[in-house]
Amino acid sequence: MTYDVKLYTEAELRQVVTLDHGMIDLMAETFAALSQGHVVMPPILSMAIAEHHGEVDVKTAYVPGMDGFAMKISPGFFNNPSLGLPSLNGLVVFFAAQTGLIKALFMDNGYLTDIRTAAAGGLAARLLAPQNVTTAAVIGSGIQARLQAQAAHLVRPFTTLLVAGRNPDHAETCADDLRQHFGNAVEVKTCDAETATRESQLLITTTPSTQPLIKAEWLHPNLHITAMGSDQGEKNEIDPAAIVAADLYACDRFSQVETLGEWRSVIASGLSPKHQPVEIGDIINGQTQGRRDEDMITICDLTGTGAQDTAIGGYVFDRLAETSLGVTITI
Amino acid sequence: MTYDVKLYTEAELRQVVTLDHGMIDLMAETFAALSQGHVVMPPILSMAIAEHHGEVDVKTAYVPGMDGFAMKISPGFFNNPSLGLPSLNGLVVFFAAQTGLIKALFMDNGYLTDIRTAAAGGLAARLLAPQNVTTAAVIGSGIQARLQAQAAHLVRPFTTLLVAGRNPDHAETCADDLRQHFGNAVEVKTCDAETATRESQLLITTTPSTQPLIKAEWLHPNLHITAMGSDQGEKNEIDPAAIVAADLYACDRFSQVETLGEWRSVIASGLSPKHQPVEIGDIINGQTQGRRDEDMITICDLTGTGAQDTAIGGYVFDRLAETSLGVTITI
Repeated sequence: MTYDVKLYTEAELRQVVTLDHGMIDLMAETFAALSQGHVVMPPILSMAIAEHHGEVDVKTAYVPGMDGFAMKISPGFFNNPSLGLPSLNGLVVFFAAQTGLIKALFMDNGYLTDIRTAAAGGLAARLLAPQNVTTAAVIGSGIQARLQAQAAHLVRPFTTLLVAGRNPDHAETCADDLRQHFGNAVEVKTCDAETATRESQLLITTTPSTQPLIKAEWLHPNLHITAMGSDQGEKNEIDPAAIVAADLYACDRFSQVETLGEWRSVIASGLSPKHQPVEIGDIINGQTQGRRDEDMITICDLTGTGAQDTAIGGYVFDRLAETSLGVTITI
Repeated sequence: MTYDVKLYTEAELRQVVTLDHGMIDLMAETFAALSQGHVVMPPILSMAIAEHHGEVDVKTAYVPGMDGFAMKISPGFFNNPSLGLPSLNGLVVFFAAQTGLIKALFMDNGYLTDIRTAAAGGLAARLLAPQNVTTAAVIGSGIQARLQAQAAHLVRPFTTLLVAGRNPDHAETCADDLRQHFGNAVEVKTCDAETATRESQLLITTTPSTQPLIKAEWLHPNLHITAMGSDQGEKNEIDPAAIVAADLYACDRFSQVETLGEWRSVIASGLSPKHQPVEIGDIINGQTQGRRDEDMITICDLTGTGAQDTAIGGYVFDRLAETSLGVTITI
């Protein structure tokens, strides 16, 4: 038996998928389904190749009612920049949910992950940030620093953006790119992490740091922080003392943050949080409350879920089916 | 940045990969490396889609010294035959070990798994079967019943083959196919599981059974059994009483058989085995002894490892590079 598989390149995927309100809505539906317990989502497969400073993660999920499911393979090889290659690569394989046959290969080099991750950040800001955000900030200077700032602006149209990169040159380049993106609508400035935290109402941390970058004493009323950098057992962006000092700690998936996210450091610290973690899906579903007033300090910890990969995979598959893009391979 | 990926179909893979002594040697090297502790092999990612009687497994491993590593996605959807489709499908993605860049997509529909699984069975027979096997037997009537019989014959050229399928029609078709394969060299007969066990010196079980098919009282001196069917938490081909009665229980990977293989049933039974399990890699490495005399009853439990997938992936990649097969995709 032979059958047809569609293969799409990153350039083609970029033509049909952008970071917008629709993508944030899709993530909201996805997290709602996830927290309702209907989604089948196994633990992440993770393999380290220490010899080459590399790691590979595989994420997947089955969302009942969807025609297909995605299996995403994400290599991250951190010697690559010295070889003139990007650190992050990979592909998404999209399968028919009824038969397990391969429907499409999205050779996206991580682009779909970039978009669904930024959209989840936009969702966290929509759900939890103070209504009135005039100054937002990002810690980090990579792709997610750029995209998270854009996603945040969709839901909280701030007028000042602070960029606090650990490497000053990278931070300046990131700020330049964001100036170009926002034009006159936003004033973009670089600063240190302390200033970024103290002066913003919405802060997004986007680094692979293994040491806390945000200290508890910098927190202030009227602040939401989304920490999207930590997705491995050794990463940590926010001081556990800051997490326990917050009025609310939300996350994408509790079973992930306790081993891969910021909550792991809270457990390791032995500190007692004011409140138990809540999942953003439960906030969407009305099972629990999010921000109750402007003064609250809220934190949202995102580790990235296979459910998001399946959701964006299905969205992309449907969008591409309406186009003449891609090559068909008979296998 | 763009780069080239090679894509190969099942038909092309069949041109360069066959079940032979070289493939069995490759599996021997792989299990030796695995048991030496050098291989990085994370637990299998497994997702059930109960609604469609489906499951998807992902296996991978990094074998130091190899230029690449494989990530294998294996869907099994057991309503497919009623839709006129094969149950097993999937692909192998082959990555550069130094950079994580995708080097090749093997759209093999499970063919590479079939071959590496059969070759591991041939290796188990080479290491553990009595030297003098005149009668071999297979339980089951699927692809692995056929391939395991062929692999066994490479290392123990028996003259009689018994086929005990649970479905008589399927068993007869399987026996016919094997008659055609072996020609006059082997007499192929169908029988029940008891006769197959009592009359053979080398028995291979190849079913997805969840109830034991082989009873302890059927065992006899001068017998080796390879159980390759169980690879999920609910499967079980051999009565735990038979396993503990054997003189030696070997396996591909202890951390897998205790949850996915026959050893799981031994643990659940509460029975005390005569000996602790050994890995076949340890036998190859001379760390432990295999069969010591012709009279022994030995069992080898194979669950299938990501190390085998990486090994055959690397082999295939190198063989294909010498050909003009495949299409090149710039991504």
